[in-house]
Amino acid sequence: MAASTTETNQQLEWREVASRKRSERNDLVKAWDPLYDRRKKLASNNVQAWPETSGELTPRELEITNSIPSSLITKLASGELTAEETLRAFVKRTVIAHHLTNPLTEIMFDWGLERARALDRYWNEFGQPVGPFHGLPISLKDLINIKGTETTMGYVAWVGNVPQSNDTVVDILSKGGSVFYCKTNVPQTLMSGECFNYLFGRTTSPWNTNTSAGGSSGGEGSLVALGGSPIGVGSDIAGSINTPAQHNGIYGLCPSTQRLPLHGPDNAFQNLIVNGVAGPLSRSIDGLEVYVKGVLSMKPWEFDSTCVKLPWDQGEYKEYAGTGRKLCFGIINNDGVVTPHPPIQRGIRDTAKALRAAGHYVVETPTFLETVADSFEKSLMDVLNACGDEEIKRILSTYNEPVSPEIVLPGPKEKLDTPQFLAAANKILRLRQKYMVKWMQTAQTSPTGRPIDAFILPSGGHVAPPHGTMGYLLYEAISNLLDWTCATIPVGFVDQTVDQMPQDGKFIPLSEEDEANWVECK
Amino acid sequence: MAASTTETNQQLEWREVASRKRSERNDLVKAWDPLYDRRKKLASNNVQAWPETSGELTPRELEITNSIPSSLITKLASGELTAEETLRAFVKRTVIAHHLTNPLTEIMFDWGLERARALDRYWNEFGQPVGPFHGLPISLKDLINIKGTETTMGYVAWVGNVPQSNDTVVDILSKGGSVFYCKTNVPQTLMSGECFNYLFGRTTSPWNTNTSAGGSSGGEGSLVALGGSPIGVGSDIAGSINTPAQHNGIYGLCPSTQRLPLHGPDNAFQNLIVNGVAGPLSRSIDGLEVYVKGVLSMKPWEFDSTCVKLPWDQGEYKEYAGTGRKLCFGIINNDGVVTPHPPIQRGIRDTAKALRAAGHYVVETPTFLETVADSFEKSLMDVLNACGDEEIKRILSTYNEPVSPEIVLPGPKEKLDTPQFLAAANKILRLRQKYMVKWMQTAQTSPTGRPIDAFILPSGGHVAPPHGTMGYLLYEAISNLLDWTCATIPVGFVDQTVDQMPQDGKFIPLSEEDEANWVECK
Repeated sequence: MAASTTETNQQLEWREVASRKRSERNDLVKAWDPLYDRRKKLASNNVQAWPETSGELTPRELEITNSIPSSLITKLASGELTAEETLRAFVKRTVIAHHLTNPLTEIMFDWGLERARALDRYWNEFGQPVGPFHGLPISLKDLINIKGTETTMGYVAWVGNVPQSNDTVVDILSKGGSVFYCKTNVPQTLMSGECFNYLFGRTTSPWNTNTSAGGSSGGEGSLVALGGSPIGVGSDIAGSINTPAQHNGIYGLCPSTQRLPLHGPDNAFQNLIVNGVAGPLSRSIDGLEVYVKGVLSMKPWEFDSTCVKLPWDQGEYKEYAGTGRKLCFGIINNDGVVTPHPPIQRGIRDTAKALRAAGHYVVETPTFLETVADSFEKSLMDVLNACGDEEIKRILSTYNEPVSPEIVLPGPKEKLDTPQFLAAANKILRLRQKYMVKWMQTAQTSPTGRPIDAFILPSGGHVAPPHGTMGYLLYEAISNLLDWTCATIPVGFVDQTVDQMPQDGKFIPLSEEDEANWVECK
Repeated sequence: MAASTTETNQQLEWREVASRKRSERNDLVKAWDPLYDRRKKLASNNVQAWPETSGELTPRELEITNSIPSSLITKLASGELTAEETLRAFVKRTVIAHHLTNPLTEIMFDWGLERARALDRYWNEFGQPVGPFHGLPISLKDLINIKGTETTMGYVAWVGNVPQSNDTVVDILSKGGSVFYCKTNVPQTLMSGECFNYLFGRTTSPWNTNTSAGGSSGGEGSLVALGGSPIGVGSDIAGSINTPAQHNGIYGLCPSTQRLPLHGPDNAFQNLIVNGVAGPLSRSIDGLEVYVKGVLSMKPWEFDSTCVKLPWDQGEYKEYAGTGRKLCFGIINNDGVVTPHPPIQRGIRDTAKALRAAGHYVVETPTFLETVADSFEKSLMDVLNACGDEEIKRILSTYNEPVSPEIVLPGPKEKLDTPQFLAAANKILRLRQKYMVKWMQTAQTSPTGRPIDAFILPSGGHVAPPHGTMGYLLYEAISNLLDWTCATIPVGFVDQTVDQMPQDGKFIPLSEEDEANWVECK
């Protein structure tokens, strides 16, 4: 920012800056939404079906936006679909979605259109796609940096913050042929399992707009669930892909670190031990596969020195998928601290049943995670809070922006000096080793003779909660702590006729967190 | 240590504790050395040939100890050699080496013999090797932890420190069939390019005992150079494999992190950014290959959660080795801070000539490393010194052990708080990214159309120096800073008839470090 701008801004209040930014955003949406001024809030809190049922989208547009990503890229690569038609369909659905749940931050529809047309010209000239994502619209969480487009990260103070270079994930997806057209909402500071900030307001779940879209990749979760994006790129350091995937009823993949790129090394390793990663959210598991295969085919290790040179292994993939090989799944239905709510418990049971019915082994491993003894949550928060709150307070002070009530800032006691910080990081490394060894040892009892192939865990202690009530986050964040790859898979919906609360007096809470988790449920 | 022992020890002085420990070591050597009491210091400072020329080793023992490691493991696997005979030959040569250059710390000859006999019984019963290292004697740098054997790390204070578990590298080599029989010397604190401490004294280079064995893996370097060990395992965080490989005229491999195991996660990531790694030292490049292939075949990622699941890629290896493919090497003969001494410069020139003669491309890339602008040495020392010297001083205070004059302890100003430390680490991550991008960009000018395949760098600013004069270490440590794999390859010897000093007045130093480097040379 130029000095004069800064001076002016210092006299502004956060409400003015935020309001001006939202107006700019809304004008950009409006330019693509002929119905903008006539839209009304829907009577129902469940708005999920609206894009399908409103009649606003043509059958062709519905067909495009409901296609699984692999079908889209196949058609785009063969010329059966143009990038422009594809983008226009998704943008049309996106503006509807935005009206319903408020997922958008930056609007780049015009830029996306230019890009789509350029890709179509390339295809017409050379008769082949530019890369694995040729013409595929991809939406990006606000924290992902695109050169020339603002990154505000839910801070009013960051209005006007224009990155000078692309994040690695942007370079790779772009070189692979994808079309960017919007960025999506996050909670203030990112450290929340919901999606509220004072700049763009709140993003909700489309299944019940009184409930949270999850966080921090909440905007992606909500937009993808409404079909506004075939693949959304979220990021995760403590449940930030898993949570919105669950709250919006979609698939999400939180990769282990150093596999799929995010920012590049400049700020990839915020704390060097529990690190942010980028991963896809999609309405189909196909979307996760398209993303991972496509990104790896671009050799991210040639773009980003923090990525390991480890290509997609089609041979190993085939060993596990589609050859009828019997797999073994471990079931962890309770971490010993918080008992998941009835619909989550039922989801786990249904998953186990479905896996058995598909011919796989399912073994109960309820005590695999020694959550209490290993203080997982404390271990995680120790490193995430080690630097205290000065930086956040410094940012918020720019326009006297308040701290969101959904955020808990680290207190002065949580600051660690460097030897303490390294000791806290070392504790996490030892936990990772302990659980790797435990996992390897399951080979001794597993019916396959191999270690358990994957664990099935609750996606959280509860389903999408009413706004402002999100609590315990360990189920969502255990994969970050242990650096495991974790996919969130939607398996059903709350059904109040079967998901009964325990009778009064029958439920004995395991912990304070458990008591809080069930009180909120009532 | 029990309380009573501690009490007693507190009344001891470091000289007594060190002297007692050395006596115990010497007694263990003596038990395997019939000539022990009759040995005299050799008249020449060059003792390298003594194991060959003294007549102490039989032709058979010389044949065994001079075999390249792949030949040894082939013969051990086929039963042509027994583990016992192999061990006895190497132990015999090791006790000679110890007399010449003082490389040993822990003596486990008896334990090694038991283990060798057990392996021979296994072979006799099953007719096959237990693993890729069946019966191969492997020596270990003192910092590597073996359950039940002391790890003193050059600290008198650590006499009596017996690890309760094996390091991962020990578990893997052991499961792979190797035979441990000795541990080797290191400098106090490990943070020195020489090899002196107050517990075991000084280890020297066998080529000139007035010069340094290098550090911190100096004991390994010297023992391996004398043929006492076919493969020695060193470790490296700032040149600690490269330096002793150079000073002892042998091959050394400092791998990038997360590839080959060291301690396990418990203390693998001392500072989470420039991390210690274990790598092999050997008299042949064959030894490096045997080590890397063998360790990777044991799937270190199933032992150590910090290792990446990345097997040996024989296909890629074959693409580069032995198919006549033309490779492209970049030559960096000066880092712009310190001009290497004449024999090092000649080594670089001879290497370039040899590579060209072998049909490869060689391109001069003198300014590839922007050493001055990027403050490589400061970047490295910032993170290595971030925690200050309290821990070292606490250890040394146990017996009022002095600080070695060859060590520079970090001062109080070098301590960093956690945000400063993370900023320093981030600076290194950005350097790694910068140099990865620069390396990838060499494809645009490389005659192969690929990025340069490897860089040839000086192994140091000077050859093995007189004791106590080791200075500038950036050439040795640049691979740690940038997390590059680095092999040290011996290409020749100092020849005073050709390696002329520049004429007085003709040499203009590039920097203070350069001036110091050349002053020491005179």
